[in-house]
Amino acid sequence: MSNLELKVLGQDAEADAAACCSPMVREPLDEETAIDLAKMFKALADPVRLRLLSLIASHDGGEACVCDLTGPFDVSQPTISHHLKVLREAGLVGSERRGTWVYYWVLPAALARLSSLLQTPVGASAGAAR
Amino acid sequence: MSNLELKVLGQDAEADAAACCSPMVREPLDEETAIDLAKMFKALADPVRLRLLSLIASHDGGEACVCDLTGPFDVSQPTISHHLKVLREAGLVGSERRGTWVYYWVLPAALARLSSLLQTPVGASAGAAR
Repeated sequence: MSNLELKVLGQDAEADAAACCSPMVREPLDEETAIDLAKMFKALADPVRLRLLSLIASHDGGEACVCDLTGPFDVSQPTISHHLKVLREAGLVGSERRGTWVYYWVLPAALARLSSLLQTPVGASAGAAR
Repeated sequence: MSNLELKVLGQDAEADAAACCSPMVREPLDEETAIDLAKMFKALADPVRLRLLSLIASHDGGEACVCDLTGPFDVSQPTISHHLKVLREAGLVGSERRGTWVYYWVLPAALARLSSLLQTPVGASAGAAR
């Protein structure tokens, strides 16, 4: 992605994060940032959590009731609740109770931060030529 | 991601990957893809591995000798070797022995795959407005 594209994206929330964060291929991560990021990646390091996050993000209107999130999985409701808590504590989703149900939505700035960190400028790595 | 897309991705650089992969915010991840991706995120879910990956990627020429990778860390050589093995087995880095030393480089298509999966299209999520 070019700098120009980053600036265009920067008009919105998530891309402010994308614009702010230097990809990890550009300069070595410092220890504190690495600890912080590892927690977020740990939340993504589970297939059920990845699918939950994807279900929430791709749901109509960008948010999902917890009642929409149990059907697709072969695990118990308490397990789903635990995984949603891990995603929330990692700062990847927000949640709010409305009446009977809790609703979840993805926090785009957090995803954009991880996405931009993993961006590999074309030709930046020797691996690109292999 | 379809098999066809994987083949296209394999031929070239990270830009193809960025173009090929539907972000997880667009449609729900299937179970198999989620299992595959979770392994890669698990490899990133450790601060030392994140810093190693970043050191390798940002090193001159995009590759680093294992002899360049032990100095910055307060852990033993065998621990560094273990972390490098995890990164290699997750498909995030490649390696090659040349004479005395093993050299490592980042596999840009793998990083680009994760990066594009986490991309959040502007306005795609309800969270963007919060």
